[in-house]
Formats: sequence, C-alpha cells, structure tokens
Amino acid sequence: MSGLRRRGIGRPPLSGPEAEANPLSELSFEERRERFLEAAVRLFEEKGYKNTSVEDIAGELGFTKKVFYYYWKNKREIVQEIHDRGMALMNAQLDAVMKEEGEPGARLDAAIRNHLRTVLRDRSIAGTLLGDFEFSEETLRARREYTRRFQRLVEEGMAAGVVRKTDPQMLTFAILGLCNSVGAWYRGDGRLTDEEIIDIFAAFAARGWRAAAG
Amino acid sequence: MSGLRRRGIGRPPLSGPEAEANPLSELSFEERRERFLEAAVRLFEEKGYKNTSVEDIAGELGFTKKVFYYYWKNKREIVQEIHDRGMALMNAQLDAVMKEEGEPGARLDAAIRNHLRTVLRDRSIAGTLLGDFEFSEETLRARREYTRRFQRLVEEGMAAGVVRKTDPQMLTFAILGLCNSVGAWYRGDGRLTDEEIIDIFAAFAARGWRAAAG
Repeated sequence: MSGLRRRGIGRPPLSGPEAEANPLSELSFEERRERFLEAAVRLFEEKGYKNTSVEDIAGELGFTKKVFYYYWKNKREIVQEIHDRGMALMNAQLDAVMKEEGEPGARLDAAIRNHLRTVLRDRSIAGTLLGDFEFSEETLRARREYTRRFQRLVEEGMAAGVVRKTDPQMLTFAILGLCNSVGAWYRGDGRLTDEEIIDIFAAFAARGWRAAAG
Repeated sequence: MSGLRRRGIGRPPLSGPEAEANPLSELSFEERRERFLEAAVRLFEEKGYKNTSVEDIAGELGFTKKVFYYYWKNKREIVQEIHDRGMALMNAQLDAVMKEEGEPGARLDAAIRNHLRTVLRDRSIAGTLLGDFEFSEETLRARREYTRRFQRLVEEGMAAGVVRKTDPQMLTFAILGLCNSVGAWYRGDGRLTDEEIIDIFAAFAARGWRAAAG
C-alpha cells in the first residue's frame, strides 16, 4: 500500500479537458486507481500479462498512458498488487479453515478447494505465466508462510491418522503443485465449469493424501 | 537445426590471437557450439535463465560475447534448443513405453517416471522459470502432441480397467501438471535424491489414476 501514499492519494481529481470527458471524474483517487487495476485484470485474462501494454490498460478506460501513470507506477506495480491481494485472500482463507473446529481431513480438503478456487480466479497472474516476474521480498515471504501453514494442516492430518504418513513437505508440495498447475492451461472458456474442475482436482489430491481407511 | 545452417556450420576455426589461446580450437564448429550450450545449462541451473547473460555464458569458456555470437544467435536460441531436445527426449521415451508390451498400468507408471526424470534433469529450463518465453510454433506443437499421446496411454488404461474412469483429459492434465510442478521448487541440492522425489510423486500420481482394485 506504500504505492498509494507515494503516488499522492488525496490529490484533487484531474482538471482540464480530460476531466470533463472523464468517466471517472466522480470517483475518489483510490476508486479510480482501482478501475485501472480492474481493466488490467480483464486484459491479462484476455491476452496475457506479457501481451498487455500500459497503453492497452489506459485505452480500456478511454485514456492515454499518461493518465495511467498518474495512478500507477507501471504495469509491474499492478501485477504485484493483484498478486498480493491473491496471497492475502489465500492466507485469510487458510486462517478461516484453521480456526474451524472439525475433522482434519475435511479441513485439508477445504483448504485445497479454496486454493484451487483462487488459482482459477487469479488465472490472469498465474505463477506459470509470470515466471520471470520478480516479486517483492514481502510477497515471497507471504508465499513461503502460506506453504508452511498449509504443511501444518497436512501434519495435523497425519497426527490424526487421516492423512497418509509420508514426507509432509513433499506431500504439501505435491498438493500445491497440482493445484497451481491448473493456472497453466485454464482459460475460463473450456467445456468444464470452475466447480467441475475444482471437484476433479480436489478428488485427485485427496486420493494422494488420504490415508487408507483403517 | 536450421540455426546450424544459417550460422555457417563448416566455417574454419577462428583465426587470430583468440584462436591461439582457444581451448576449443581442436573441436569442430558443432562441438564448440555444444560447449556454449553446456555452459549455458550450467549457468541456468546455478543462477536461473533470467540472471544469466550472454557475457556470463561466453565467460564460462573464457571468451567475450563476440565469440558467443559466432556460434549462437542469442540466449533464446540456446533455450529453444535445450527445450527442443528435452521434448524430443520425452517423445522418444514415450515411443519406447508405447511400443512395449505389458500391462497398461505399468506402462503409464513408466511414462510418469520418465517424465519426472526429464523435469528434474532439465530443471534449468523448467516451464515455470520460463513463463515469458515464446517458444516456436514447432515446439508448441511438439508439446501438444506429447500431451495427446500421454492421454492415449491414460485412455488405454481406462479401457483395460486399471485407470480410474474419469475425464481422461483432466486426468492427463492433473498427472502432467503434478509432474511439471517439481521443476518449480527442485534445486538439486535438497535433502532427497532424485529417485526419492520420483518415487514420491509417481506414487502420489498413481493414487490419483489407479482404479480401485476390483
């Protein structure tokens, strides 16, 4: 969020001719900033991150790129923000799952389905499409923290006898790797619905993690 | 291989002072070209594709980048070549598996283990590290062809009753996605050997694809 401070949140709306034709002129700085982010998400999903230029993003809202740079430092800053929100959501979902009472197997399954849902939702910035993207140290820390907490769910399941006894880190990597791989091919216009895909992949994962019924 | 023709295979070795100190001077053009590729592979594994410059690759062999450009068009050409070799190897391995007589489940398991082994071997160019890389149309075709043939193995197994009856394309994507995900974290210096990792991931996959024993 330091970007918001740095780029002068609270400045008055643009004045001059652009402001008159400006479909965002009624909005606050932060709301307008958000519109650019939403336009970027749409374009990333349509054409991919790499094939989307700042001109394209500004053009979606009827602006030149000069206007874009009033709200965002560059395309990377938007991607970083989308990714950070995705991570925050995933960590919040994991918090919710970990706070729930309940059978450890059901909790792990819920965590897997949440993870899959976020990958499908955030397909525009799926890890595999952004292999060259240098995320901030903070983002990488958040990712590692997420993986560690996910592994804790796996270990709890092992202790309770519902998760197969094997290397907990490898099992965690297998589950998350499987889930993340969906982002590499999913395009949102296929023959299966999101929920069908989630069911298939969660079931595949469950066969991998579930201990044989005693 | 068109690169070889284009860049003048068969030219005499470099002459001048560089040739005298040239550790490659006894080698053919193609052999010397290969040394640059090997140096690139080492550096990609060490530092990643993105953090390796043409200067670095040339420097590994004691040359300036000018010499590199005598053998290769650019870094991308080397990556494309490494990837094409990987795909050729994977397709050849799949040929071998598909020609074998034998129980369809054992064949699928062998194909999965071969795939995992290639991902571990080619970790320097693992898909996730090259998300922004634009592969040639030919390479993409070879990839799709590989996936289709892999799916045929899955379908044969279903017909024989050893592979769980489910959407064959989704099952293929799940298996290959799981296998490819190893490339995202594997670094070759971890606490597990390659064969241990292959066993864990092949077993996880098998739990996902194997039909319940009747």
